[in-house]
Amino acid sequence: MRQAGWSGGEDGGRKRTGYLEPTANSWAYLCAAEAQESLQNSAQLERGPRLGTRPRPSATPGARLGGGMLVAGRGHASRVGIGRAGSPPEHPCPGEDPAATIVPYGTLDPLAGGRMAVPPSTYPRRLLPLFLGLFQGALLLFFALFVTYDEPSAQVEDTSLVANQVYSTFPFFQDIQVMLVVGLGLLLTFLPRYGFSALTHNFLLLNFSVQWALVLQGLLHHFHHGQIHLDLHKLLLSEFAAVTVLISVGAILGRASPCQLLVMATCEIAFYLASEWVIVTCLGVLDVGGTITIHVFSCYFGLGVSKALFRATQQPLHPKETPTTSSDLMSLVGTLILWVFWPSFVAVLCQPGDAQHRAILNTLLAMSASAITTVVASSLLDRDGKLSPSHLQNGSLAGGVAIGVVADMAVPPVAALALGSLSAVLCVLGFRFLTPLLARKLTLHDQCGIHNLHGLPGILGAAASIVAVLVAPKDGGSRGVGGQALCQAAGLAVAVGASLLAGLLTGSALRLPCLARPPERLCFDDLLYFKIHDQAESPGPDSSAEEGALALKEQV
Amino acid sequence: MRQAGWSGGEDGGRKRTGYLEPTANSWAYLCAAEAQESLQNSAQLERGPRLGTRPRPSATPGARLGGGMLVAGRGHASRVGIGRAGSPPEHPCPGEDPAATIVPYGTLDPLAGGRMAVPPSTYPRRLLPLFLGLFQGALLLFFALFVTYDEPSAQVEDTSLVANQVYSTFPFFQDIQVMLVVGLGLLLTFLPRYGFSALTHNFLLLNFSVQWALVLQGLLHHFHHGQIHLDLHKLLLSEFAAVTVLISVGAILGRASPCQLLVMATCEIAFYLASEWVIVTCLGVLDVGGTITIHVFSCYFGLGVSKALFRATQQPLHPKETPTTSSDLMSLVGTLILWVFWPSFVAVLCQPGDAQHRAILNTLLAMSASAITTVVASSLLDRDGKLSPSHLQNGSLAGGVAIGVVADMAVPPVAALALGSLSAVLCVLGFRFLTPLLARKLTLHDQCGIHNLHGLPGILGAAASIVAVLVAPKDGGSRGVGGQALCQAAGLAVAVGASLLAGLLTGSALRLPCLARPPERLCFDDLLYFKIHDQAESPGPDSSAEEGALALKEQV
Amino acid sequence: MRQAGWSGGEDGGRKRTGYLEPTANSWAYLCAAEAQESLQNSAQLERGPRLGTRPRPSATPGARLGGGMLVAGRGHASRVGIGRAGSPPEHPCPGEDPAATIVPYGTLDPLAGGRMAVPPSTYPRRLLPLFLGLFQGALLLFFALFVTYDEPSAQVEDTSLVANQVYSTFPFFQDIQVMLVVGLGLLLTFLPRYGFSALTHNFLLLNFSVQWALVLQGLLHHFHHGQIHLDLHKLLLSEFAAVTVLISVGAILGRASPCQLLVMATCEIAFYLASEWVIVTCLGVLDVGGTITIHVFSCYFGLGVSKALFRATQQPLHPKETPTTSSDLMSLVGTLILWVFWPSFVAVLCQPGDAQHRAILNTLLAMSASAITTVVASSLLDRDGKLSPSHLQNGSLAGGVAIGVVADMAVPPVAALALGSLSAVLCVLGFRFLTPLLARKLTLHDQCGIHNLHGLPGILGAAASIVAVLVAPKDGGSRGVGGQALCQAAGLAVAVGASLLAGLLTGSALRLPCLARPPERLCFDDLLYFKIHDQAESPGPDSSAEEGALALKEQV
Repeated sequence: MRQAGWSGGEDGGRKRTGYLEPTANSWAYLCAAEAQESLQNSAQLERGPRLGTRPRPSATPGARLGGGMLVAGRGHASRVGIGRAGSPPEHPCPGEDPAATIVPYGTLDPLAGGRMAVPPSTYPRRLLPLFLGLFQGALLLFFALFVTYDEPSAQVEDTSLVANQVYSTFPFFQDIQVMLVVGLGLLLTFLPRYGFSALTHNFLLLNFSVQWALVLQGLLHHFHHGQIHLDLHKLLLSEFAAVTVLISVGAILGRASPCQLLVMATCEIAFYLASEWVIVTCLGVLDVGGTITIHVFSCYFGLGVSKALFRATQQPLHPKETPTTSSDLMSLVGTLILWVFWPSFVAVLCQPGDAQHRAILNTLLAMSASAITTVVASSLLDRDGKLSPSHLQNGSLAGGVAIGVVADMAVPPVAALALGSLSAVLCVLGFRFLTPLLARKLTLHDQCGIHNLHGLPGILGAAASIVAVLVAPKDGGSRGVGGQALCQAAGLAVAVGASLLAGLLTGSALRLPCLARPPERLCFDDLLYFKIHDQAESPGPDSSAEEGALALKEQV
Repeated sequence: MRQAGWSGGEDGGRKRTGYLEPTANSWAYLCAAEAQESLQNSAQLERGPRLGTRPRPSATPGARLGGGMLVAGRGHASRVGIGRAGSPPEHPCPGEDPAATIVPYGTLDPLAGGRMAVPPSTYPRRLLPLFLGLFQGALLLFFALFVTYDEPSAQVEDTSLVANQVYSTFPFFQDIQVMLVVGLGLLLTFLPRYGFSALTHNFLLLNFSVQWALVLQGLLHHFHHGQIHLDLHKLLLSEFAAVTVLISVGAILGRASPCQLLVMATCEIAFYLASEWVIVTCLGVLDVGGTITIHVFSCYFGLGVSKALFRATQQPLHPKETPTTSSDLMSLVGTLILWVFWPSFVAVLCQPGDAQHRAILNTLLAMSASAITTVVASSLLDRDGKLSPSHLQNGSLAGGVAIGVVADMAVPPVAALALGSLSAVLCVLGFRFLTPLLARKLTLHDQCGIHNLHGLPGILGAAASIVAVLVAPKDGGSRGVGGQALCQAAGLAVAVGASLLAGLLTGSALRLPCLARPPERLCFDDLLYFKIHDQAESPGPDSSAEEGALALKEQV
Repeated sequence: MRQAGWSGGEDGGRKRTGYLEPTANSWAYLCAAEAQESLQNSAQLERGPRLGTRPRPSATPGARLGGGMLVAGRGHASRVGIGRAGSPPEHPCPGEDPAATIVPYGTLDPLAGGRMAVPPSTYPRRLLPLFLGLFQGALLLFFALFVTYDEPSAQVEDTSLVANQVYSTFPFFQDIQVMLVVGLGLLLTFLPRYGFSALTHNFLLLNFSVQWALVLQGLLHHFHHGQIHLDLHKLLLSEFAAVTVLISVGAILGRASPCQLLVMATCEIAFYLASEWVIVTCLGVLDVGGTITIHVFSCYFGLGVSKALFRATQQPLHPKETPTTSSDLMSLVGTLILWVFWPSFVAVLCQPGDAQHRAILNTLLAMSASAITTVVASSLLDRDGKLSPSHLQNGSLAGGVAIGVVADMAVPPVAALALGSLSAVLCVLGFRFLTPLLARKLTLHDQCGIHNLHGLPGILGAAASIVAVLVAPKDGGSRGVGGQALCQAAGLAVAVGASLLAGLLTGSALRLPCLARPPERLCFDDLLYFKIHDQAESPGPDSSAEEGALALKEQV
């Protein structure tokens, strides 16, 4: 019965003039929906007819969807999508009488709104601007009180030094900005009706997280004599902190509200800074590309949030979750942008000179091997030898995740190649087997497959760093070779453990009703957050053909 | 009766094989159409039946469109689009008998062509290549006579100096090229059937304006002993001049012919160089990021052109003017590219060292604050708390416009944040209230909302620079602190006044009939300028559904 | 009768649930199809009815397509596309009874599979991963045995030197990566249903070719004492080698399998290194931007491959070959990205200092002139003065091809402008006249028009370099001015001759049946290689409208 709710609303509610967008009332509905969703959706449907809409047989699609495909997720969608279950989610009601399905969304919402105690339709939709507005105000105050720039230097040599620092850092910094804003944003647009949200939420979270990380980092590390001296390097460190948020969000993409995402960012930045302090400062872990501190941490944080947020509910395959060709293409362009600029991300914090040179070369080799091995693995896993878009979009980047921790160490080029190949294999296998398994056994939902792109290759990279420390002929400083290897292992353990725990805590907090998680049937849809035009005109499942037939039907 | 002309042509003329593209004859039509449009469209319609096509009742859509929505524009479209008037422009004739509307475009054009004195269909369509070809010839002559490179330096130190200059400027230069060619081009593709034109005209105008600015700047500033020595810095200055054209064009995007745009560029570059000479050289205004000299100037120039070109005609909402989701998404990607590279634009001309470092940081802070404040403002202004794409596309960049003039001054970081937030608020408020007001009261048409992105934040930035000059503990050179503040104010006044006047003059020149302004019904359409395939197959309003129904109708 | 095969399959085979994707059996079919295609397609069709599908009259579209338009290609498509033959390929059966065309693809394939001796459906679809996997294994072995990094330098000055080298090369390197991965990839997406393949194959070939070139170049040039010392410069040289492959592929885009492309890359890299050794090392040709060694070589290599692969078969205009507006738009974005970063490609290998500065300026001037002249030429060639997308996409880049060989020579700025203009004119004229002519007279198929973008401007550039060497007041080293000019001419001759010969050889090798060239009717389709979703939902020719009508028909 549950799927019947959104299935009916989705397919039946689209009238000739475009389907009714979620209105103010639907927002109010969001507040209470979370707790009682499964109970009340059916009740709404049964109360629907009293409002003068025609009754509709809800059993057919609900039963089929509920029985046939209970588990979703990026990795799974790729298996299910083309194969046996490709067409049902796209044409959920091919056999139904179209005339009987005209039950617009709107008729559900008044009932929902009238049912609730909270002031209808004001609270949640104002929460986002209030939260952000207050945050900006507090930030202004904080900056006014504590943040300043360095005094301009008087000497000519100092000026030249600063200039050289700018020239050596700024191109890397810009590359990373392109990666995060454009590349990662586009990578997330694989959901065909959620591109606007993916791009905008990614952009918003980046800015919010950088600002929040500037504040926290300033207070923790750079607070001297009541002042924080801002420079490009500190901004870069905040940017790295923000990356963790952007990665973690991938686990719950499309099923969380912007308010939830902001709360998640608020928590994650704090946990990240603590974990990074333990791993890098206390344990002295070597991790120039952030494999352990950023990728592994953010992956398990995201999975923890997902687990705590969705608990034991199986996420059925949502009709809007299946990528279209054009959305997959946009996403692939995002991958390519990330692929190109990844060396800048790994090498920006390296020691200038040989170490940085080596880090760039290692990353280039690892990513090149990843790209080719992804094709091999994806093709071998498919019965027909075809490539899966999600494998390409993620596997090509796996080498960059794994290489980060050893990029500037004295490893030979072949190690970079091998690491790139192995991580790509792991990533593709993860998509093919592990993600569906986790979804089935642990009811763990991972929308973008971040475990395959950031978790598995990150762990592989950490293991490689242990080997590299043991093998490489490098003086291990005060603690010796064995000690450093132990530290690397300890760092990995801390990253996994702390992030899972922190993620579970944060995910529980996100269940607060006031954060307005969208109900299942309104997920994956830009219309909930943006004043965009009805997507019925744009290419999408079951759009114009049925409408054309329907329109004529009405005239005939 | 006027709207009936294009309304009938538009909807009725699309036959099953794709609607008839504007032909050679329609080009000829363009010449005379401007002056007599309102009179003769109806005459053509009434003469239509004689050619064997069926008569159609033209009153219905004309009356509805004329009465219901008289005012258009980017800012207004965002308000009107989703709300009450979203569907009418997309399905302008839902109630009409489709069989009665089969009046192809072609039947109008022979009449139009036969009616005119000018040689039919040769003049205007050859004007663009003739103009550009002659310009290229003249440019070649000019370069052959006067332009040369520096002699290669003999000393090793000089070579190293040149190399360092290249390494310190070229990455910035490339960033700016990406902004102007890709970022700004994509930002302008929000018109769903005008993407090709937006991208190409932007690209063409950039190249034309840079070349023309090289000539003029060379003659004015760099002419020594009969020679102009070209270098990367001079090319960069020409690029800055070209930016003014690309911004101004936003006011009349989609309603002007390429010839008009080129004439506009020709005039604007000259006016810009004059105004920049007055503002920077004579008045000594500090404006490293071009807030006053580029943004404010180009905004009011564009508005002046728009006013003089369209005069008192209300521009009705054209059916092709409403963005689709995918065109809005492309435009957002353009915004993100601009956002990422904006610091390069502001900082490229700064003094290397601390000033440049500070300019980069200030710009980053301002743009980050803009991005978040835009979300706050856009969400608060909407009844349902939804974000408007046009707000996001423009508001996120407003901080970059405002910060330019103070970026390298000794302002504290909090000032950059505050300026970014304020300018985003101004920009969003402008879209929501000011643009519709200007359209209603002054019949001022501003297609892309350049007044909100460049005008208001530019004025805010100029005001901030006055405060910064007064407050900042900087030795103001020979004229003292008060004098410099006065100069900043005078510079703003000159920029606004001169640009408005120059724009009005230029706009009047653009009304010359030989420049072939497209008549209203052919606006916003790539088919007029490009040999692209019929867009009926691509997603767009009222395409396949109606055609499918129509096709079957004929068979039934 | 031949065209009837795919024409029927194409239009008739698309059922309401999306047209049947090429299955495992269709892969088996590919093996034998090549040799016997023309014979057996008709046999399949006639055997079709036995499987219970209705017979269909195949004569109509086959005859029309076969008679009306036998020649295809990028240049030709632009002429044919919009003009007289724009609609037939998109609606090939407008007059046919839709009910009679329900002959799904699937019915052909079992027959094909059952007909063959090769083990059905395992060999070709496993060839790609086997080939790539073995290559990666061999590469790992090679790197393990022979490749190493430089030892970290002990002195501080050396570290600073390395750091400066990184800072001076890496931004250029990243620009070039963006060009090849994103820019060129997007440029190739003009085929509306082949975007995924174009982007992925381009990406795969780049990585494969770079790795293979690293091996070969290491063995040939950098093998000292059993070791190859890898650095960024050598990676850059391999990247340049890979560019030749990416260009050549344009000649056969969409009609070759990935295995064929990889074999082609394997051969081409070897031939390129040999030819480059002769041209640059033996003959001492000056060619800093790779005009002769890269562009001319790869163009004629690609044409040779195309000629040997397709022999004398006229390639009919495939229904999926015609670009849509949105695919053309993506392609134009790719052009703009290439246009912006081209100066980095030309200047990266120049001597730092004046020569590099001049190379950047020359390239900027040439590309600017190209952009404008393309508009002039394209507009003048069209009856209605409209611009052709393919002209814009290619002509704007022609100046960059031509200028490469003279970019760092002591040529005046006017020469760069003139060269840019001339090459754009040549490119546009080539598209308009030469490509159709070659297709008609020599049955030479050039899908992307690489002869117009790389061949003609490359030859022009080589000619210009002869003039520049003769005229420029430069001491020509040991061989004198005349000798150097002769060498430039000899280099051009070697590049053209060797590449044609090598291309013909390689093309013959690509005819091996095991390489699984897709049969004509499955060309230009992502579905053959990717597990993407049915494109029937996405915009494309003859999609929803007909389906809508068809669906209703079934219900009526």
